[in-house]
Amino acid sequence: MTKRLAILGSTGSIGRQTLDVVDQSEGRLEVGTVAAGTNWQGVLEQVRRYRPRLVAMMDSVAAEKLADALQKEDIHIPVCTGEDGLVKAACHPEVDTVVTAVSGAIGLGPTMQAIEAGKHIALANKETLVAAGALVMAAARNKGISILPVDSEHSAIFQCLQGQDRRHARLILTASGGPFRDKSVEELYHVTADDALRHPNWRMGPKITIDSATLMNKGLEVIEARWLFDTDFDDIEVLVHPQSIIHSMVEFTDSSVIAQLGLPDMRLPIQYALSYPDRWTTNWPRLNLTKMSSLTFQAPDLQRFPCLKLAIRAGRAGGTLPAVMNAANEIAVHAFLDRKIGFMDIPKIVEDAMEAHEWMREPDLLTIRRADEWARTFAEMRVNHGREVSDCSPF
Amino acid sequence: MTKRLAILGSTGSIGRQTLDVVDQSEGRLEVGTVAAGTNWQGVLEQVRRYRPRLVAMMDSVAAEKLADALQKEDIHIPVCTGEDGLVKAACHPEVDTVVTAVSGAIGLGPTMQAIEAGKHIALANKETLVAAGALVMAAARNKGISILPVDSEHSAIFQCLQGQDRRHARLILTASGGPFRDKSVEELYHVTADDALRHPNWRMGPKITIDSATLMNKGLEVIEARWLFDTDFDDIEVLVHPQSIIHSMVEFTDSSVIAQLGLPDMRLPIQYALSYPDRWTTNWPRLNLTKMSSLTFQAPDLQRFPCLKLAIRAGRAGGTLPAVMNAANEIAVHAFLDRKIGFMDIPKIVEDAMEAHEWMREPDLLTIRRADEWARTFAEMRVNHGREVSDCSPF
Repeated sequence: MTKRLAILGSTGSIGRQTLDVVDQSEGRLEVGTVAAGTNWQGVLEQVRRYRPRLVAMMDSVAAEKLADALQKEDIHIPVCTGEDGLVKAACHPEVDTVVTAVSGAIGLGPTMQAIEAGKHIALANKETLVAAGALVMAAARNKGISILPVDSEHSAIFQCLQGQDRRHARLILTASGGPFRDKSVEELYHVTADDALRHPNWRMGPKITIDSATLMNKGLEVIEARWLFDTDFDDIEVLVHPQSIIHSMVEFTDSSVIAQLGLPDMRLPIQYALSYPDRWTTNWPRLNLTKMSSLTFQAPDLQRFPCLKLAIRAGRAGGTLPAVMNAANEIAVHAFLDRKIGFMDIPKIVEDAMEAHEWMREPDLLTIRRADEWARTFAEMRVNHGREVSDCSPF
Repeated sequence: MTKRLAILGSTGSIGRQTLDVVDQSEGRLEVGTVAAGTNWQGVLEQVRRYRPRLVAMMDSVAAEKLADALQKEDIHIPVCTGEDGLVKAACHPEVDTVVTAVSGAIGLGPTMQAIEAGKHIALANKETLVAAGALVMAAARNKGISILPVDSEHSAIFQCLQGQDRRHARLILTASGGPFRDKSVEELYHVTADDALRHPNWRMGPKITIDSATLMNKGLEVIEARWLFDTDFDDIEVLVHPQSIIHSMVEFTDSSVIAQLGLPDMRLPIQYALSYPDRWTTNWPRLNLTKMSSLTFQAPDLQRFPCLKLAIRAGRAGGTLPAVMNAANEIAVHAFLDRKIGFMDIPKIVEDAMEAHEWMREPDLLTIRRADEWARTFAEMRVNHGREVSDCSPF
C-alpha cells in the first residue's frame, strides 16, 4: 500500500533525503504535499518532479514567486503561505503521514494540527517534543496515531526496543561530541561559526550542526527521548562516541544492552520511520567494522558544554521551561551563525532566559507559545543590546 | 509460573552458572533433574541443595558412589547412569525445559529424546545442531517446542532479531580470536594446552576453550546459527572482536545493524533462554563503555586458523560431514589436552577425517551416529599411531 507524505521542510537536509527515500521506495511512498521556508526555486523543482497536491512557503514573497513560476509553466496547484500554509500542507486530506523536517519550534503548530487530523508523524523536528511533549504525546494517544522518530538516535532506540520487554529500560543516547570535543574552555571562547559548521561525521542543516557543537542537540534529544519512549530522565544517559557508528543503545534490566549501528546516513532512520514495521532493501553503503580503526566512548563534559546540562535541567523542570530554553537557544544559535555573538554566549543567553522566565507547571499550547515568544524577545534583546530584559514578561 | 529444569552437564561451567541463575530467579526456576559425567561429589552437593527428582551420572562407577553417598544421607532419589540416564533426566515428566550443557556430541541423543517428549530446549550444546541440525530442527517444529540458544553469540543474535523483519537478515558472529589471535603460524606449532586454556575474556570448560583457540568454536557456531535461525551460510559472517563486548550482530536489508552488548558473563544468555520473552532484573555488573579503551574489529585469518574454514566447508556440504568434522575435532582436542598431539595437528586430523569419510547426503540419526563413531575411531588411530586409517569405513 502506498503511503502519501506531507514533507514539511522539503528543501532542507532531511527533506531532500526524504525525497531520496521516496525515489528508492519502488512506489511504496508518494509525495502528497511539500512545504519550505524561502527556497522557492527548490520547491519549484520538486513540484516539477513529484507533482504534489499542494505546496506551502513560509515566506510570502517566496510564495508569490513560486506561484508566478508555476503559472508560467501551466502547473495548477494551490500555493499557500505562512504557518497556516504549513498546516494546510500537513493536514491535506490525501496525506497519510507527515514528515516534520522543519527546523525549530515552528514545527509545533502544524504537527499538532496534523495529529488532530489523524495523520501519522515521522518526527524530525525535535523542538516540537521539547517545547510541548506532554501535549503532543497526549494528542497522539487520543487520536491513536503513531509518532515515529527520524532522528538517528531515537530511531536507533526505537529499533532496539522492538520486541523487547521495555519495563525500566535505560536509554543510552550516543553523541559524536561535535567538532569541538577536545577543545579547552578557553579555545571554545574563540571558535567561529565556520569552525562549528564543520561537523566531523554528519552533514546536516546549520541550526542542528551548531547544536551538535554545543551539545544542546543532545540535550534536546534527551527531552525528546523522555517523551517518545515515556522514560524518566534518570534512565536516560548521554555517552560521547566520536565515530558515530553506534547510533544509540538500550540497557535492559537483566544487564543486556542492545545497540543499533550503521554508517552516518540519515536516509536509514527516515526510511525506517516510513517503512516500519517492515524494512525495505536498499543498496546503500554497508557498515564494515573491519574498516574502522576502533570505537571509543567517553562521558560528556558538562563543564565545557553547559548546554547539555541546561537542557536536562529544563526537561526535568518541565512546564514552560523547555520551550523557553529551546526558543532562547534558537535565537542564540542564529545570532552565532550571524557572527553577532560568541560560541560561549549561547549557553549564557539560554541560562539567563531560563532564570528570568516565570515558570508555569502545566501550560496549554497557547501558554507554551507565549513562553516561547517571550524567550525569543528576551534572547534577541540580549543578543542586540547585551542587557538584562528580565522584566519583559508576557504574562 | 515456575519452570522446572533438567540440567544436563550440571557440574560443568554452564551447569553451575545455570544453578546461579536458578538461585537468583526468585522462585521462577526450579531444578527438576541434574545429570553429569564423573563428578559425583559435585552432584551430591547439588542434590543436598536443590533436591532434584532424579540424578544421572554418565560414568557408572561415579553413579554407584553417588548412590552410596545418597543412601548414607537417607536421600531417596533415583540415580541413573549412561546415556540412558541422561535421557531419563531430560525426559522426566516433571521437567519443562532441558538445559543441554554437556560437552560434545553426547548431547545429541538426550536432546532428541527430550524434544520427542515435548520439552523445551535451552541449548548450550552446539555439537547437537552441528551433528544433526536438520533432524533436530525438524523434530522441534514437529513437536512445536522451542530451541532457545544459550551460547552468548546466538543469544545475542536471537535478541537482535526480536520484533524485526528477519527476511534476508545477515548474521555477524563475533569472535574474540582466542589467546593466539596474534601468533604466527610458526608460533602456533609450539603452543601448549596450558597456553590455550588461558582465554583472554571468557572462563569456560576445557573443550570449548581449545575450540576458541583454534576458531573451531566459531565454525561450530556458524553451523549452529545456520540451523537456529534458518539462514544461508552466505549470510553468516565471522568478525574478530578481541574485547568480547559486542556478542554478535544482525545486519538487516535496509543496512541497519542491531548488536547485543554486555560484559562477558554467561549468566545473561542462560537467563534470557529461560526468562524469554521476559527479561528478569539482575544485580550483575553493568557494561560501562567509558571504562573500555576501545572496541576493535578485524577479519578472521583462515590461513592461521584453518578449523574455521573446515567447519564452514563441512556445514555447507551438510549430510554426514558436519558430524564427522565435529567428532574428529572432539578426539583431536582431547588428545591435545592430553599432550598427545600439537596444536596444529588438530585441523590436520579434522581435515584428514573429512577427506577420508564416505559422505552421505540425507542421513538419519543412526547414520549420523555411525559417521560420528567412524570419525572418532579414525581420529583416535591418527592420534595414537599417526597413520592413515581411511579404509576403516563403518558402512
